[in-house]
Amino acid sequence: MIETPSRALFTDLYELTMAASYFAAGMDDTATFELFIRELPRNRNFLVVAGLEDVLDYLEGLRFTADDLDYLRSLGSFRNDFLEWLETLRFTGDVWAMPEGEIAFAEEPLLRVTAPRIQAQLVETFLLNAVNFQTLIATKAARVAIACQGRRFVDFSPRRDHGFDAALKAARAAYIAGAAGTSNVLAGKLYGIPVVGTMAHSYVMSFETELAAFRRFARDFPGTTLLIDTYDTLEGARHAAAVARELAAEGITVGAVRLDSGDLAQLAKEVRRILDEAGFPNIRIFASGDLDEYRIEAILAADAPIDAFGVGTQLGTSGDAPWLGGVYKLVEDARGPRVKLAERKATAPGAKQVYRFSGAGGVFEFDMVALAGERSPLEGRPLLRQVMEHGRRTLPPEPLTRIRERCLANLDRLPARLKSLETVSPPYPVRHSAELERLLARTREQVAAANWPTAARSGDAT
Amino acid sequence: MIETPSRALFTDLYELTMAASYFAAGMDDTATFELFIRELPRNRNFLVVAGLEDVLDYLEGLRFTADDLDYLRSLGSFRNDFLEWLETLRFTGDVWAMPEGEIAFAEEPLLRVTAPRIQAQLVETFLLNAVNFQTLIATKAARVAIACQGRRFVDFSPRRDHGFDAALKAARAAYIAGAAGTSNVLAGKLYGIPVVGTMAHSYVMSFETELAAFRRFARDFPGTTLLIDTYDTLEGARHAAAVARELAAEGITVGAVRLDSGDLAQLAKEVRRILDEAGFPNIRIFASGDLDEYRIEAILAADAPIDAFGVGTQLGTSGDAPWLGGVYKLVEDARGPRVKLAERKATAPGAKQVYRFSGAGGVFEFDMVALAGERSPLEGRPLLRQVMEHGRRTLPPEPLTRIRERCLANLDRLPARLKSLETVSPPYPVRHSAELERLLARTREQVAAANWPTAARSGDAT
Repeated sequence: MIETPSRALFTDLYELTMAASYFAAGMDDTATFELFIRELPRNRNFLVVAGLEDVLDYLEGLRFTADDLDYLRSLGSFRNDFLEWLETLRFTGDVWAMPEGEIAFAEEPLLRVTAPRIQAQLVETFLLNAVNFQTLIATKAARVAIACQGRRFVDFSPRRDHGFDAALKAARAAYIAGAAGTSNVLAGKLYGIPVVGTMAHSYVMSFETELAAFRRFARDFPGTTLLIDTYDTLEGARHAAAVARELAAEGITVGAVRLDSGDLAQLAKEVRRILDEAGFPNIRIFASGDLDEYRIEAILAADAPIDAFGVGTQLGTSGDAPWLGGVYKLVEDARGPRVKLAERKATAPGAKQVYRFSGAGGVFEFDMVALAGERSPLEGRPLLRQVMEHGRRTLPPEPLTRIRERCLANLDRLPARLKSLETVSPPYPVRHSAELERLLARTREQVAAANWPTAARSGDAT
Repeated sequence: MIETPSRALFTDLYELTMAASYFAAGMDDTATFELFIRELPRNRNFLVVAGLEDVLDYLEGLRFTADDLDYLRSLGSFRNDFLEWLETLRFTGDVWAMPEGEIAFAEEPLLRVTAPRIQAQLVETFLLNAVNFQTLIATKAARVAIACQGRRFVDFSPRRDHGFDAALKAARAAYIAGAAGTSNVLAGKLYGIPVVGTMAHSYVMSFETELAAFRRFARDFPGTTLLIDTYDTLEGARHAAAVARELAAEGITVGAVRLDSGDLAQLAKEVRRILDEAGFPNIRIFASGDLDEYRIEAILAADAPIDAFGVGTQLGTSGDAPWLGGVYKLVEDARGPRVKLAERKATAPGAKQVYRFSGAGGVFEFDMVALAGERSPLEGRPLLRQVMEHGRRTLPPEPLTRIRERCLANLDRLPARLKSLETVSPPYPVRHSAELERLLARTREQVAAANWPTAARSGDAT
């Protein structure tokens, strides 16, 4: 085992300078922050929420070590009384959140933190980092699942993911949203995800001939998948068939062949024909190599006889939209609802809840964002639930398989038109409750009056 | 401190199935693998190498724990003798590599591993993950540095990076390639990078008025930067000037104002005018908000009076090109040089070295890739150096400041035309030595003859 450092310092410096200022001013009243995504990334019609387990683990364990405090002291900008107080800091707040595997849309709070202001502010960076990335990848994986139309796909991304942690979390997020497994052995061990993989080109190149390589590997791993494109894909298919024929007498089968380069749709058809003509209709075809949901859709539209896909780089980096712009905003404090008015970046005030309304067959019809304090509507299903009270989890960690089942059930209920790989118009309807609308209008007026004295005065004069 | 699991299992499953097959076949001869990038990502004219420190740390510590082996046993596909042998496995190979902060181009080996075949193969996934991501971000940061034309920029990316590890490594890679600091406090502590940051919108919203917020913060952190766009940027600039005037009597200054939304170039001009007219020509203007190298170039082309930039999402995710397609290929084993011929994915055989030739003023002129065994040319500077021998480092870890100095010195010597933010044509010249060319031709013929018996036969018949 190797040690990683305390996560308390995993924060933007400004969280700590603000904390020091609040501390000096005695401003540690209860505040509520919400985490939401302003607009969906390119070509996205929905999000699959992930990252909550990391968030709760972090919040439960939050504390500054002596080492952390020594470092902060060395920066020379923090007062000793603040650092001493920081040593005693624990997270004691309440958290409401959509569970992992839930479907969400733009402008909906995915997570709400109510805590003494300094705590609630300090945790911003970690919460955003965890939820932004894991939601990004779960969403990408759901798109790949949609493109696969029921065929299996697996995560092949570790070598191109953004570091060690990204590869583990990408495997987990992909599994939540429908991947059948991952090539990442450590993710398999940590999360109980099925692991997959057989051979690389270097294996084939390590033998005098491709035939010799196939023969050896099939004997060592009966039922395996043989990679057939190291030299020439069609010749490779013939070699795979030859080895399957040769080893049949020993009771050894070849499970599949893998294509990893070239025109996959065209090659798959020719490989299928070669295998069928050789008497091996049961050897499946597995494809990989620069795949994403768009290419898979095109390949299947061309009637390629491919049974399963390995998706790497594009899945693990969400290559066509590699970030999620989630934000974490103050929505309420002791003085009431708060709002920010910066250009193109307005926030809705007040602690909120999201209700989902479904129609015939359970298909999602529209969502309504309402104030958390409002009486809940009779029919809508509330999406945020309390997951932490006074800094303690209210529920045990969820098994990953349950999260995955939730996600797949949700994807089944997503309106078919939202499963397009391009942005559809109009988007899924997300409405405001009448009470939220009234609060929004009122708060904006108040803020404008307090901060644009000129405008407010001329308004008064008319 | 929290513990992270052993990194030995951070590998694609196929590395282990191949290892098991090599073990069963007694194939553990010495093999050489090289890590290289086939083609530069979109709009890139060079790469800044990073990730080596992680690689060496991983290789030195490589071992499978009892826990790791129990997990592998549970998969049911590995034989006991292999797992017992795996328990004793340590990395005992030699590594040659370009140092971090070196400039590299497509098709050049960044790193070369020579070790018993199983070891050399097993480490592939971790090595690619570390070098691909960190080189990606160092390269992106160098582009941002070029766009900034000598102005300071800092890493603001933690909340949008791909997880915990990505944010730490992004801060480090950005610093190597010219960032003046990072907002990531943990990265500051771990790597000794200067940390930066002052206040968020939520701080301003936590006070009755913006003026009250500015007053409080400036007193707590004299010389600080005030964020002026929470409500209205120009009104915010007037408030900042008012507070600067008010606190001057106490000897407290305002160091800068930060713009985070809107038309930054236009707003910066108006803010500059407001500050100058108020008698504060020394208050600097800091800009952030959805910035990348392209926007910074455009902003400065519009003569915006901005003194420094905070770059977040796009820096930490390399948003316009979010992955680096580095590969790790077998190039030589006991039987001699090896080559792979799959479509569009050919590799060059043999263990290699890269020589860089410079012209007047030390400006890079061209590179030559040669066989490692060739007599080195008289003038070219060899870029790969031995960093590990028999599994031990040959050099102590490099201080990050030295890596950064190397990078900045290298960027100074990069031909000016390669500093374009778009792909230039022709690319920087990377030549093959005559000996490498001859080997390439010979090896391809041999491989084709062995694996396309039909083609070889008809060739024989003519």
